[in-house]
Amino acid sequence: MSALDFIPRERLAARISELERVYEEYKSRGLKLDMSRGKPGPDQLDLTMGLLDQVNLRNGYSTRDGIDTRNYGLVDGIPEMKEIFAPLFEVDVSQVIVGGNSSLNMMFDFIAMVYSRGLLGQKPWAKQEGIKFLCPSPGYDRHFAITEYFGIELVTIDMTPEGPDMDQVERYAADPLVKGIWCVPMYSNPDGITYSDQTVRRLASLKAAADDFVIMWDNAYGIHHLYEPGDKLLNLYREAEANQTENRVVMFASTSKISFPGAGVAAMAASPAVIAEVRRRMSFQTICSDKINMLRHAKFFGSFENMCNHMKLHAAVLRPKFRVVLDALEENLASKGIASWNSPRGGYFVGVNLMDGCAGETIRLLNEAGVVMTPAGATYPYGKDPRDRNIRIAPTFPPLDELRTAMQLFCVCAELVCLKKRLAAM
Amino acid sequence: MSALDFIPRERLAARISELERVYEEYKSRGLKLDMSRGKPGPDQLDLTMGLLDQVNLRNGYSTRDGIDTRNYGLVDGIPEMKEIFAPLFEVDVSQVIVGGNSSLNMMFDFIAMVYSRGLLGQKPWAKQEGIKFLCPSPGYDRHFAITEYFGIELVTIDMTPEGPDMDQVERYAADPLVKGIWCVPMYSNPDGITYSDQTVRRLASLKAAADDFVIMWDNAYGIHHLYEPGDKLLNLYREAEANQTENRVVMFASTSKISFPGAGVAAMAASPAVIAEVRRRMSFQTICSDKINMLRHAKFFGSFENMCNHMKLHAAVLRPKFRVVLDALEENLASKGIASWNSPRGGYFVGVNLMDGCAGETIRLLNEAGVVMTPAGATYPYGKDPRDRNIRIAPTFPPLDELRTAMQLFCVCAELVCLKKRLAAM
Repeated sequence: MSALDFIPRERLAARISELERVYEEYKSRGLKLDMSRGKPGPDQLDLTMGLLDQVNLRNGYSTRDGIDTRNYGLVDGIPEMKEIFAPLFEVDVSQVIVGGNSSLNMMFDFIAMVYSRGLLGQKPWAKQEGIKFLCPSPGYDRHFAITEYFGIELVTIDMTPEGPDMDQVERYAADPLVKGIWCVPMYSNPDGITYSDQTVRRLASLKAAADDFVIMWDNAYGIHHLYEPGDKLLNLYREAEANQTENRVVMFASTSKISFPGAGVAAMAASPAVIAEVRRRMSFQTICSDKINMLRHAKFFGSFENMCNHMKLHAAVLRPKFRVVLDALEENLASKGIASWNSPRGGYFVGVNLMDGCAGETIRLLNEAGVVMTPAGATYPYGKDPRDRNIRIAPTFPPLDELRTAMQLFCVCAELVCLKKRLAAM
Repeated sequence: MSALDFIPRERLAARISELERVYEEYKSRGLKLDMSRGKPGPDQLDLTMGLLDQVNLRNGYSTRDGIDTRNYGLVDGIPEMKEIFAPLFEVDVSQVIVGGNSSLNMMFDFIAMVYSRGLLGQKPWAKQEGIKFLCPSPGYDRHFAITEYFGIELVTIDMTPEGPDMDQVERYAADPLVKGIWCVPMYSNPDGITYSDQTVRRLASLKAAADDFVIMWDNAYGIHHLYEPGDKLLNLYREAEANQTENRVVMFASTSKISFPGAGVAAMAASPAVIAEVRRRMSFQTICSDKINMLRHAKFFGSFENMCNHMKLHAAVLRPKFRVVLDALEENLASKGIASWNSPRGGYFVGVNLMDGCAGETIRLLNEAGVVMTPAGATYPYGKDPRDRNIRIAPTFPPLDELRTAMQLFCVCAELVCLKKRLAAM
């Protein structure tokens, strides 16, 4: 029973008429707003402009070891940048590879590597039939899409407030065809959940039937706190070492939402054996990544600590935006029995669950009124939310006033769709 | 019969003693010289430093369409940079994808795409057994290595002064397991050969038994002339269109040796169908490449014509270096019946053929005396030169005086090894 069950039919109908009037009024305004993707706003990008002037004839272009970053060499990145990423991954510098501009591309390449060549000498996934991958959902559509691209079957795992439902994970991992799991362990996309210590420990000690099981650990928001102190994530790699499962842990991060999306620096970390295999593949793939851009970042940030401090500037820009989203939800949808949501302490999203069967229609109404949202279902494998209820709100890109308008309209649409559904079911 | 056959035994032995003395003298100098890879020299890199200051708060960071290059978006590159590359490929702008920093990586990805997903709906190479790839040799080791990485059998094709031996290519292409050919059609690596019109036409009209045959057309040195006017290459794509084989043509280029190796911009061009397939794959692979770096290049060069003019500055630096190499060869090895070489009008290398069986030993002597060379055999599939005679000289990186020393020593080693071989066979 929800609050909605106590509202009489007539009051429902009246409220629906009222919401429809408000919706039409919004629609007539010809809005053009975008809350679809986790993009930083221009105000955030301005925070890092100084980075672009770091490498030039006056400031120098060599690493501290005297390597000319303008020329070929150092396939796995410059030492300065490895040192900045190592404390983020909490591993030794030797276990870090600094790559190009995109951690997503590094993940794609890792899956492609195991697909075509196998993990550490095991049978390539291309030569195995019917393999599967675990997708904690709601989750990140682009993760799921990578495995889908390689013809791997996606298995939905429920998310809990502590991370993926580990009972389900353990059950599925007993199948040797299940080859891995996608994780955004801190401030998860879209729910903003940080995995509990217990979840991390169960992942590290997971009895996976497949010897080539991989944990794709995308620490995309590892230092992207909105409030101090930020969430703490247990070090999966150390736990895995203790369980001798360290070869299954592959960690990724980037500065996409620290410096510039698309013009930042990405990195990965893993066990020495896995890193050696990736480095070997890279030696076939490319001569080197963009070391000038690495040096720009290394000079601008100087250290991991400074980079963390830089994130406070981002947080100051983002907190009011998240506040607008959460206030709107609270004012308009709280205690009505039609929606629930999280209050993330970091990351880039707010996840909203509406009544079952109401997400798609809500998005449709928003789109018709000029507000672009992440498509309904996008947070689930194959773009299909089995309960059609989850909506990912990305508050970071629009200016505050546009965000306010978009959120007011969002709440109108959500309530309208849910009440109509309720009325139809009466 | 060569000039060598007329030298009596005693004179050979005396010359060998003399060369050995000179060699030991060089060795005692503790040289540290590198002629191993086609890297631009620092003097060349200085030519482009202005590029690094192009994008900043004062100069702006948006494309002419108002796209903020600092943020996500435009998976296939900014229009300005496509327009600079289109005339190089001689195709329509819509057929160009601008990628990351490495054309080699784009080639790797293209082979990986066909391997895992097949070309335009055909059977993935991963699902076919015993496939092969044609490798005109001497050629570029990193090309061959990509196909080797995917377990594809490498077939050596002889190079002629007009490009690959097309009789051999036509014969092999009748085998449906032969899936493609690697080409560096202008100023080829390492021989500096530009394919003749006849060769390009025969490639375009090639009767390949495999429907998924691909011509990997790496136009790495398309505007890298040493002398004006530069060589002219017939437009393979137009010829292929006339033969309805355009879906097999995949062209690559980069600014690695125009701006900065590793921090330049790479691009590819192909038929609309193939480009659509690559773009689709990219949408799984990454959100976008580094658009700030693209904008830097677009602002610095402004147009294809300006970029070609910029290459004249490179040529001015490189001509004396090639001159040193060719003069040394001419002065020391000409008419002795022990070596032949090309005189390239562009590109990055001079290819030398010694007497059969003498390349490996010559390189060994050079290495022992502190001169790093491309390993013998590197220009052939699997790193094995069947006649052990080809050596790739890369004159671009060392300063002129070091290059002079290295080339004198090269000639000493080459003559010494060849004469010893001749003496032993007497």
